Amino acid sequence: MNNKVSEEQKSVIANRVNNLPESFIREILKVTTRPDIISFAGGLPNPKLFPVELLQTVTNKVFVEEGREGLQYTVSEGFQPLRHKISERYSDKGLHVKPENILITNGSQQGLDLTCKLLLNPGDGVLVCNPTFIGALQSFSIYEPSYSSVAIYPDGPDVEQIASVLREKEIKLFYCVPNFQNPTGATFSEEKRLQITRLIHETETIILEDDPYGEIKFTSAKIPSFKQLLPEQTILLGSFSKIVAPGLRTGWLAAPDHLIRKLVILKQAADTHNNHLVQRILFRFLTECDVEGHIARICEVYKFQRDLMMDCIKEHFPKEVKVFSPDGGMFLWAELPEHIDAYAVFEEAIKEKVAFVPGKTFYPNLDVNNTFRLNFSNSNEDKIRKGIESLGIAIKKFL
Amino acid sequence: MNNKVSEEQKSVIANRVNNLPESFIREILKVTTRPDIISFAGGLPNPKLFPVELLQTVTNKVFVEEGREGLQYTVSEGFQPLRHKISERYSDKGLHVKPENILITNGSQQGLDLTCKLLLNPGDGVLVCNPTFIGALQSFSIYEPSYSSVAIYPDGPDVEQIASVLREKEIKLFYCVPNFQNPTGATFSEEKRLQITRLIHETETIILEDDPYGEIKFTSAKIPSFKQLLPEQTILLGSFSKIVAPGLRTGWLAAPDHLIRKLVILKQAADTHNNHLVQRILFRFLTECDVEGHIARICEVYKFQRDLMMDCIKEHFPKEVKVFSPDGGMFLWAELPEHIDAYAVFEEAIKEKVAFVPGKTFYPNLDVNNTFRLNFSNSNEDKIRKGIESLGIAIKKFL
Repeated sequence: MNNKVSEEQKSVIANRVNNLPESFIREILKVTTRPDIISFAGGLPNPKLFPVELLQTVTNKVFVEEGREGLQYTVSEGFQPLRHKISERYSDKGLHVKPENILITNGSQQGLDLTCKLLLNPGDGVLVCNPTFIGALQSFSIYEPSYSSVAIYPDGPDVEQIASVLREKEIKLFYCVPNFQNPTGATFSEEKRLQITRLIHETETIILEDDPYGEIKFTSAKIPSFKQLLPEQTILLGSFSKIVAPGLRTGWLAAPDHLIRKLVILKQAADTHNNHLVQRILFRFLTECDVEGHIARICEVYKFQRDLMMDCIKEHFPKEVKVFSPDGGMFLWAELPEHIDAYAVFEEAIKEKVAFVPGKTFYPNLDVNNTFRLNFSNSNEDKIRKGIESLGIAIKKFL
Repeated sequence: MNNKVSEEQKSVIANRVNNLPESFIREILKVTTRPDIISFAGGLPNPKLFPVELLQTVTNKVFVEEGREGLQYTVSEGFQPLRHKISERYSDKGLHVKPENILITNGSQQGLDLTCKLLLNPGDGVLVCNPTFIGALQSFSIYEPSYSSVAIYPDGPDVEQIASVLREKEIKLFYCVPNFQNPTGATFSEEKRLQITRLIHETETIILEDDPYGEIKFTSAKIPSFKQLLPEQTILLGSFSKIVAPGLRTGWLAAPDHLIRKLVILKQAADTHNNHLVQRILFRFLTECDVEGHIARICEVYKFQRDLMMDCIKEHFPKEVKVFSPDGGMFLWAELPEHIDAYAVFEEAIKEKVAFVPGKTFYPNLDVNNTFRLNFSNSNEDKIRKGIESLGIAIKKFL
């Protein structure tokens, strides 16, 4: 009987979905919502830093002054003044993208989906770092690409490996998170960016530069983006999720002239346009509030939490565990001695009432079992102290 | 040089997008935004009926009482109380859909995209009415289906034609708007729904029942939905765009057990989840405000506008033009004598400062040139009187 249903399903469902893996992270996150568990597992920004009162104030203005407009349909490209504002903020940082090349999306996740829809035929080559952001793999897999992957180190991917892949295979898309990568926290060095730019420039490859964390930084280092270095071959994704609030589901993509028009049509077919009211709310927030001060405050708090977590790790983790401390973003990346399985540690950790994400899930095509990710943005001082101490106890059982 | 760019584009862009037609309606709507033009072209609800003050009140409550939760990430399925509320409202109307089978989407447009993503391999059979909703064709075309079509009359599609298509070809998806169809205003009769149900039940076909207008009705007639008649083979799409406001981009789909889980994964890969804050705002609006009274008011105003437009048409249109008056929704459908081209009339109409949408754009695979659509929801009394008189003048030039 069960078999019959399963066969029936197969005939109805499209090939692209039939073999889609469910996200293991979802299963992990279910365990970690238990109130007795201290969770470093999720990838959530700290809700204490959401600008609730400021957003409420500008929202009331939108309702009073432009409520009927904001509740009506609008254009698929997005609210024009918001696109201008995004362009202007980029200019202030030395990146020149015209508002016409910006499309408002439901977070950068939709930018991933639209880009794949635009570019990928089944079997097309997609190059990713190993490990990489799991949500991107989920989006890509629907378009049935052929993955290639390269190792990533604290200063970025293995450039020799990239060169070798590009020599051997046609790569349609190189996906990367160059700033404070999820999950490793790695930031591509300027040298590596320049080397990669030279390699990609020789090809037809499009760089999909995913930058949700770029503004959450703990140093004043300024490294050029791929969009600056190779504008015609880069689609840059941005998001308000980490600098304002993820619940608003508003991000954007910046694409070259020859791609943006078709991306707008795909956006129209996907969901007509982004929430119009919220686009106007965000525009007012960016225009009327001290956004840069707000972002500086987020950076200050996250930096404090990163430092604290690293201090606690030094105190409680066995010295055999290597932990990378990033210059921004929301994650630490840990490497256990090779013989220790992070899943086994996870199970012990749950007994000690603390959770993290085993690294295995972030590798598209490697069987790496001794790494894990720790989120430091969404825990207060007490939880960081207590959670890392408990995690140290769990790890020590394996040494 | 241009040729080179164009070839380069071709090699980069996926097949599914290369031949995607741009929406002609976009071009039409551009003309019709001129302030001197009375436009019956768009498909906009009347912004005067948007519940701005009520929404502002519940929004403030959300910010004060649950602001931090509403600004955080949430589950891909959608805000649980909102899914319950949608299920409850269906129950009140005699349709039983469990909250677990409801997925919140960015308007019903996203329901179209996710359904196609779930079901369609390139070349799969899709059956539509001729004419049909253009936004659906745009979504479908990305998945490269093979279209079949059947004629539609004021009481629904030609059932004999449906039977014949189903005999000859495997149809993965039958797409329809059974209530006050866009563009024709047609409502499928109960008899035709039962006949179609019997036909589809013999097949593996999924009915994609798109119902954005179902609650905007001018009679008390109760006709069962396909979701009631054939629940296991129907995906039902609903939307708050016409009963609350389209700018909020919130709709839902209701799918059977064997499909809903994969649709949730596709939603997650597409954009993580719908705007969380807005889901809480809509839940409060549905729970704390007199929604049924609000919808009754919309129906009353739209009925008045439909009646007025029909009266003006009787007065000003030549009797050779047949106009169908629907029992709900937002559109009238007109048929000119066969020798008159609605595009030519459109050009004359623009000179008379009035606009509509020529019907041709709504036919997926027929060359019908003598029909057009009129929107009655988004014009006040003066505009309806003046616009229809001017349109009568334009049409008379062809007789």
